Amino acid sequence: MEADETAAIAPVARVHSSLTERGEAPKQGHEGAPDSRIEILPAFLEALDGIKPGDEIVLLTWFHQADREVLKVHPRDDLNNPLTGVFATRSPDRPNPIGLHRVEVLEVEDERWLTVRGLEAIDGTPVIDIKPVLEPPGY
Amino acid sequence: MEADETAAIAPVARVHSSLTERGEAPKQGHEGAPDSRIEILPAFLEALDGIKPGDEIVLLTWFHQADREVLKVHPRDDLNNPLTGVFATRSPDRPNPIGLHRVEVLEVEDERWLTVRGLEAIDGTPVIDIKPVLEPPGY
Repeated sequence: MEADETAAIAPVARVHSSLTERGEAPKQGHEGAPDSRIEILPAFLEALDGIKPGDEIVLLTWFHQADREVLKVHPRDDLNNPLTGVFATRSPDRPNPIGLHRVEVLEVEDERWLTVRGLEAIDGTPVIDIKPVLEPPGY
Repeated sequence: MEADETAAIAPVARVHSSLTERGEAPKQGHEGAPDSRIEILPAFLEALDGIKPGDEIVLLTWFHQADREVLKVHPRDDLNNPLTGVFATRSPDRPNPIGLHRVEVLEVEDERWLTVRGLEAIDGTPVIDIKPVLEPPGY
């Protein structure tokens, strides 16, 4: 990928959640998000080896409903907050609409399904990567 | 993006670093990485508004030299470590080779250049997103 080039990303997993509309999802996972299930797609099952209950992981998602033309927003959709560059916010509307979600793994089933605590992504959201949380420095 | 679809991502910025080869980059930013400069590409300058020296941010990079077919690795390239799924490691070789780097902003110049502390990405690495660190829950 050079400065004027693009790369293709494809889902490696998918979110199954009781949250079905963007408007009902909490802004952050610690603000009351439900437990959710992550379905690893068949081609990527091997990459899950080593993840176990109790692990803290970072899910990278693709906000498939995002507006990628947006460069400034009122943080938390509150017009009282001054317009701010999206790189200084966690707005899902941004040029590459990637979400970062730190969650705890509660269960691993059939080497294919993860149950995780506190994910604010809606049902059907594509997961594009999964990483372990590193300590230090804190994520 | 549905389960069988891909999306296109494009760089929003680029790393300028004294690290020029993958082999000489530390595994993690706190393991001796140098200060680096981040050049925001012209189309995205507005999105930087609100980022200031002292901020802790997460840079998402695209490991353009990665092998995307790799699903298991020996962590830290040490053959004494058993083969592990890449989702349980920070290997740059993975299906969607996105890097997460927590760094401190030291300086912002001309609303276009960021100087950051402790980035282990090599010169020329594309940056695909920039986010503020959230407290809580810790990244």
